[in-house]
Amino acid sequence: MKNKGLLVVISGPSGAGKGTVYQKVLQLNPKILSSVSVTTRAPRAGEKEGVHYYFKSLAEYQQMIADGAFLETASVYSNYYGTPKSAVLDRIDKGCDVLFEIDIHGARQIKSQYKDSVLIFLMTPDFKTLKKRLSERGTETESSLKNRLGSAKNELAQYGEFDYYVTNDIAEQAAKDIITIINAEKLRVKFNKPTIKNLLEQDF
Amino acid sequence: MKNKGLLVVISGPSGAGKGTVYQKVLQLNPKILSSVSVTTRAPRAGEKEGVHYYFKSLAEYQQMIADGAFLETASVYSNYYGTPKSAVLDRIDKGCDVLFEIDIHGARQIKSQYKDSVLIFLMTPDFKTLKKRLSERGTETESSLKNRLGSAKNELAQYGEFDYYVTNDIAEQAAKDIITIINAEKLRVKFNKPTIKNLLEQDF
Repeated sequence: MKNKGLLVVISGPSGAGKGTVYQKVLQLNPKILSSVSVTTRAPRAGEKEGVHYYFKSLAEYQQMIADGAFLETASVYSNYYGTPKSAVLDRIDKGCDVLFEIDIHGARQIKSQYKDSVLIFLMTPDFKTLKKRLSERGTETESSLKNRLGSAKNELAQYGEFDYYVTNDIAEQAAKDIITIINAEKLRVKFNKPTIKNLLEQDF
Repeated sequence: MKNKGLLVVISGPSGAGKGTVYQKVLQLNPKILSSVSVTTRAPRAGEKEGVHYYFKSLAEYQQMIADGAFLETASVYSNYYGTPKSAVLDRIDKGCDVLFEIDIHGARQIKSQYKDSVLIFLMTPDFKTLKKRLSERGTETESSLKNRLGSAKNELAQYGEFDYYVTNDIAEQAAKDIITIINAEKLRVKFNKPTIKNLLEQDF
């Protein structure tokens, strides 16, 4: 029997820098696997089946929902996106760590499907910085900016559902903090039960 | 309001290398405080009150037990040794981390007095190594060695009471693993509540 891998979720409000930090974590530790989503949208140029996405028809996707085959699923602009449960749990059973970058709604779905998930809340040092980062995208109106900041506060108020809180001041440091969390989680007693049980079967 | 410090306990069987690893952790991170014990034994040459121990009479010590003033207490060769609760909790409230090196009985007492304690089980890679380390002390008879190994197995069987499991193959690496655990624990949501609550009171 082997120690399992970890399911680690980076979540947090829009503008916290989830995508950047996620990429940096994968760079810093190439052994961590990224998850591959299923989608109903058409492949774009260069996108490969099983690498970027698993492409499915709407009917196939709906059947997967009915079968409870998703760790999480969401619809964005009339397309569906979701994470297939079996592919992720197979990797974890083999001892691989799988990393997700997902909004709070998705993080909550994953936790409800897999209670040993490690949920990390990523946040800017303050709301001023969050506002600045969102504004710099240049895609927000004054009113959509206000909405996003309001949502961010509501999301932060749900911190109790998360295991860790990482401040994204400098993305490189936030990524290192997440690597520290992953390394420490692998030292938790609950992830070392196979090692301990093997030891208890030894003679001396 | 400020984030609290951590109470971290290194425990494990006799021969696992608790003392060596404890000293290395303090060297690697001099900000971590070691706890100072109260004892009824007489001071030895060079031992200073409040630095090496707090020296008390038997009557004073017994009064402290009656007052529930200890995080843990034990008797060794007719002398008492214990950790004063208020001194440790004061430091933790001020945001300092306090490290303990103690047997499993003491670790359990500390956890029962302070539920946010982080308990680390330190163990050799296998029982063969534990036997070798105990033998090398040159103080064990064949029969006391057998007893110690039996106790070690009983202690390991109680792994469920611990939070983390660190293998002491090379002491330097075990100390680094403990530093990783401490750094990750400081990122836990429950230790960052003051930070998060301050943020939730901000306007944007």
